[in-house]
Amino acid sequence: MDDLHYTFNEILGLEKFYRRNLINCVSGFKSANLVATKSLAGTCNVAIFSSAVHIGADPPLQGLIFRPDSVDRHTLENIRATKFYTINHVSSAMIEKAHQTSARYPKNQSEFEACGLKEQYIENFHAPFVQGSPLKLGMELADEVPVTLNGTYLIIGKVQHLIVNESFVSQDGFIDLAKAGSCVVSGLDAYHSTQKLARFSYAKPEKPLEQL
Amino acid sequence: MDDLHYTFNEILGLEKFYRRNLINCVSGFKSANLVATKSLAGTCNVAIFSSAVHIGADPPLQGLIFRPDSVDRHTLENIRATKFYTINHVSSAMIEKAHQTSARYPKNQSEFEACGLKEQYIENFHAPFVQGSPLKLGMELADEVPVTLNGTYLIIGKVQHLIVNESFVSQDGFIDLAKAGSCVVSGLDAYHSTQKLARFSYAKPEKPLEQL
Repeated sequence: MDDLHYTFNEILGLEKFYRRNLINCVSGFKSANLVATKSLAGTCNVAIFSSAVHIGADPPLQGLIFRPDSVDRHTLENIRATKFYTINHVSSAMIEKAHQTSARYPKNQSEFEACGLKEQYIENFHAPFVQGSPLKLGMELADEVPVTLNGTYLIIGKVQHLIVNESFVSQDGFIDLAKAGSCVVSGLDAYHSTQKLARFSYAKPEKPLEQL
Repeated sequence: MDDLHYTFNEILGLEKFYRRNLINCVSGFKSANLVATKSLAGTCNVAIFSSAVHIGADPPLQGLIFRPDSVDRHTLENIRATKFYTINHVSSAMIEKAHQTSARYPKNQSEFEACGLKEQYIENFHAPFVQGSPLKLGMELADEVPVTLNGTYLIIGKVQHLIVNESFVSQDGFIDLAKAGSCVVSGLDAYHSTQKLARFSYAKPEKPLEQL
């Protein structure tokens, strides 16, 4: 079949739901994460995010893009109020419950209960983790960068806690996420598992790559 | 085996390469994209990026995180000077060439030639696309958002051209990236293919999900 070729103006003219599905696919696969918080009043919140982005390793910083008018708004309110949140990888076994967290629940209802997920706590850390998640990050808000172009926010946090089973961590720090079962999302609603093709050595000009 | 649990201070104390591998894995899988530019002097540049993030669908906006002191610096210089760049999905067949683009080539050398990749052009668009890529975006710089916390930049572009084979696009706009062969990266160097598990319906409270 032929290539589809849409220009900017043609994309703007597409039917709304078609455009939303299409444009949410074009950046490529995205990590599937559950972001969990607890309000000052004590209500827990958990919501699926596919907008995690690596910001830096030293110090360890992770970013998330938030749309304040979306179902994620309780998560953002809780992060602003309490400064703490968790990022939890979604495993293949959790995809249905994880997707259900994207429903528009009332503010005083915990998505943990509504979606059949279980909270897990560590000492002296306000936000709940998601039990059964293969890799869990305890985050502290470090900066909120406004994206004025469309009213979104890049929320950046410091990794205060990193919890992962040691069986997935190699001697050089690499974490085998395929083995851990971490999933990826395409678009708004398609969940995928992964299979490792290759790990390559650090690339240098005029030097052939080696498989690690 | 037991869980590893690292705190922020423990992460700061880790050996540098171990920390870099570890922290680059914690956000989960990332899309593998080749970002291509052409300098005002006419030299092409192509570099692999795993920091693409969806910013919005209306208008269609995509973001990329740049570290200006890294090997990506020629790409950023060209984007600033010409305003145009392309984002090209990496397929399974291209992972070795794509990884080789991360080598530190001199500014006047084209990574296309050095790495065995081929340029492809469309009319009236300055930047080259990567031949054979399953999904190609022609981008125009829209905003540059500084992340003052660690000196990185969120570069946001408008999707001026979207090119993908129509056999991968569903009636509702969803693009089957697993079928298209788009890859994901874990950490700095591990390439993976994907396999679809499920597509779920739009989630609503008290309504069971359906598989699409």
